[in-house]
Amino acid sequence: MTYLDHAATTPMRPEAIEGMAAQFGKAGNASSLHASGRAARRVVEESRERIAQALGARPTEVVFTSGGTEADNLALKGLWWSRGRRRVVSTAIEHHAVLDPLAWLEQHEGADVTLLPVDAGCRLDLAALDASLGDDVAFVSVMWANNETGVLQPLDEVVARASAYGVPVHSDAVQAVGAVLVDFAASGLDALTLTGHKLGGPYGVGALLVRRELELTPVLHGGGQERDLRSGTIDVPAIAGFAAAVELAVKEQADTHTRLSALRDELVAGVLAAVPDAVVHGDPARQLPGHANLGFPGCEGDSLLMLLDAQGIECSTGSACNAGVPQPSHVLLAMGCGPEEARGSLRFSLGHTSSAADVQAVVAAIGPAVQRARAAGVRR
Amino acid sequence: MTYLDHAATTPMRPEAIEGMAAQFGKAGNASSLHASGRAARRVVEESRERIAQALGARPTEVVFTSGGTEADNLALKGLWWSRGRRRVVSTAIEHHAVLDPLAWLEQHEGADVTLLPVDAGCRLDLAALDASLGDDVAFVSVMWANNETGVLQPLDEVVARASAYGVPVHSDAVQAVGAVLVDFAASGLDALTLTGHKLGGPYGVGALLVRRELELTPVLHGGGQERDLRSGTIDVPAIAGFAAAVELAVKEQADTHTRLSALRDELVAGVLAAVPDAVVHGDPARQLPGHANLGFPGCEGDSLLMLLDAQGIECSTGSACNAGVPQPSHVLLAMGCGPEEARGSLRFSLGHTSSAADVQAVVAAIGPAVQRARAAGVRR
Repeated sequence: MTYLDHAATTPMRPEAIEGMAAQFGKAGNASSLHASGRAARRVVEESRERIAQALGARPTEVVFTSGGTEADNLALKGLWWSRGRRRVVSTAIEHHAVLDPLAWLEQHEGADVTLLPVDAGCRLDLAALDASLGDDVAFVSVMWANNETGVLQPLDEVVARASAYGVPVHSDAVQAVGAVLVDFAASGLDALTLTGHKLGGPYGVGALLVRRELELTPVLHGGGQERDLRSGTIDVPAIAGFAAAVELAVKEQADTHTRLSALRDELVAGVLAAVPDAVVHGDPARQLPGHANLGFPGCEGDSLLMLLDAQGIECSTGSACNAGVPQPSHVLLAMGCGPEEARGSLRFSLGHTSSAADVQAVVAAIGPAVQRARAAGVRR
Repeated sequence: MTYLDHAATTPMRPEAIEGMAAQFGKAGNASSLHASGRAARRVVEESRERIAQALGARPTEVVFTSGGTEADNLALKGLWWSRGRRRVVSTAIEHHAVLDPLAWLEQHEGADVTLLPVDAGCRLDLAALDASLGDDVAFVSVMWANNETGVLQPLDEVVARASAYGVPVHSDAVQAVGAVLVDFAASGLDALTLTGHKLGGPYGVGALLVRRELELTPVLHGGGQERDLRSGTIDVPAIAGFAAAVELAVKEQADTHTRLSALRDELVAGVLAAVPDAVVHGDPARQLPGHANLGFPGCEGDSLLMLLDAQGIECSTGSACNAGVPQPSHVLLAMGCGPEEARGSLRFSLGHTSSAADVQAVVAAIGPAVQRARAAGVRR
């Protein structure tokens, strides 16, 4: 099987499985006072320190959540409620875990949300950012790297501009951690989202890195775990596995970058050789090492996906499929693609299991698959 | 080690660990269209069916969450926002996962929250419920069984009274599932919370059972997993482990009840023989099989807990300890205990690993421990 959908989820690393399994079958809630509880608490706090150390954060800045979506909801709604300002600035290419909370804030809470445009290469339009900023902005949220194209966003410039107005900046970095260098302190960000299952850790656990001075209103209320920012029984095994995965991903990041970008470049070159009119979406000079987003004119992305799947090659369309109706990707639309072009794209995303054989399999299969998809035609 | 804190968390059952571990290392996001994604989705849907089957619910009524706290937040805030009525009725003895969302709704959203009283046996005052109900009530939330005393609440009466006004009822049943018979359809409830780690499943996963007709506003927005009621990447391994644990706990429930209530009765009798002035909090005729909440006059609960811990016996105080300052339990206060009495209590909670040897260890240790705790005196 050729699994090229690591951006959707990547298999757990053995070190993460071991770190997690070592906690299974143990008694002791990390909030309990007895010896088992204290032992569980030690595992959690050591994990927090390991993650902080790997990402240039202080341990107290690591707030564990159930994953990236919850961390994004906490950052966005938490800042909205705590800041008490009406305007919100983000981008048109955010993940639904950011776009949907913002839509809710708009519809339900009266937020005035500006979604900034990007250029044809999927990079944020900084002039539009300049025009949108002001003292009345509750927060800015810009992803570290786009999940469909892998294109890195100009966060340094975003932080510099927002901080001139005292506006806090959040970034969803779930695709970035382990793929590029992520240093929370150096980034100047106020809040950053990461998640376990995108970097070889377990599902169901993630974190929001939160600068200590930042006030956030909780989204989940209860026992007051995670310094009252997030309640819910602490998931000791998942946190232990998450810490192992973060540490490993960050330690190997430079090597991973070299290895995956070479494989990715081979894949793109091979596909272009087989399908000369394929289109590369994104900005090859400024993107994550494992992402390749390719457009195949005259193809329905979903059909192409299933044809490749039948050959044992797993990838994704950039688009979301609602009730079987293919929707054009909001990211590609924001980059200026037309709806048909946006529906005719595939994302291949490489990760720790990827090999030259995976690339060869795609290169061998893509030509005939595109021919068949073109014969089937585009649904209108 | 004598672990008698199963109500805080209970060790995973081997079947749950196996169910979970079988999914580790696999590729495939359950929302992906390729073969690995579809295989992951099958595991999730089979797990949903197993849980529904075990609990008298329909599969579509099972909404997976990250645990009990999130499920409670979803039920309470979701009903508050969707119902658009100002009054909320609950009880003074709810878990913080209910009380704290209600406090937030009161302070932040303008809810008018009534917390109903209980009697000395920790049972809800139904006359007070009658007086509180009306067409202007958004919802009623009453726990199935109290987590500190194990006392079962009169849910049939609550449902009958609330439904006369068309008011939906939610119940936090995290302590009840696997300990007593829980049948969602038969209960007449509109929403019910359960969680993995209280019944031998993993941490980090739980569910809200939601009657199909009930409208709920999501608390976590994003990709729209879980029929748009809850977003976040689906935690396939945890859900598989959760389903195995629910199935097992429900299958064994009647035997567990017989076994644990006999052990618990021995524990209570043995402690009363060793400490004749100890007080049994709760209602022995109407409570969960594994709970014993005992008051030790003249003792500080935390001191007693640490003295027992030093003997390898792990239990809890009913109270929450904030920053080292022991707080009297809000549950015991609601039952009419004074603050000192409330601070001098311990909860022993039995579960699947409990044995006669555990009971003997407590009975042997409690007398000397109480003597020493009394000598240390009560902090004022």
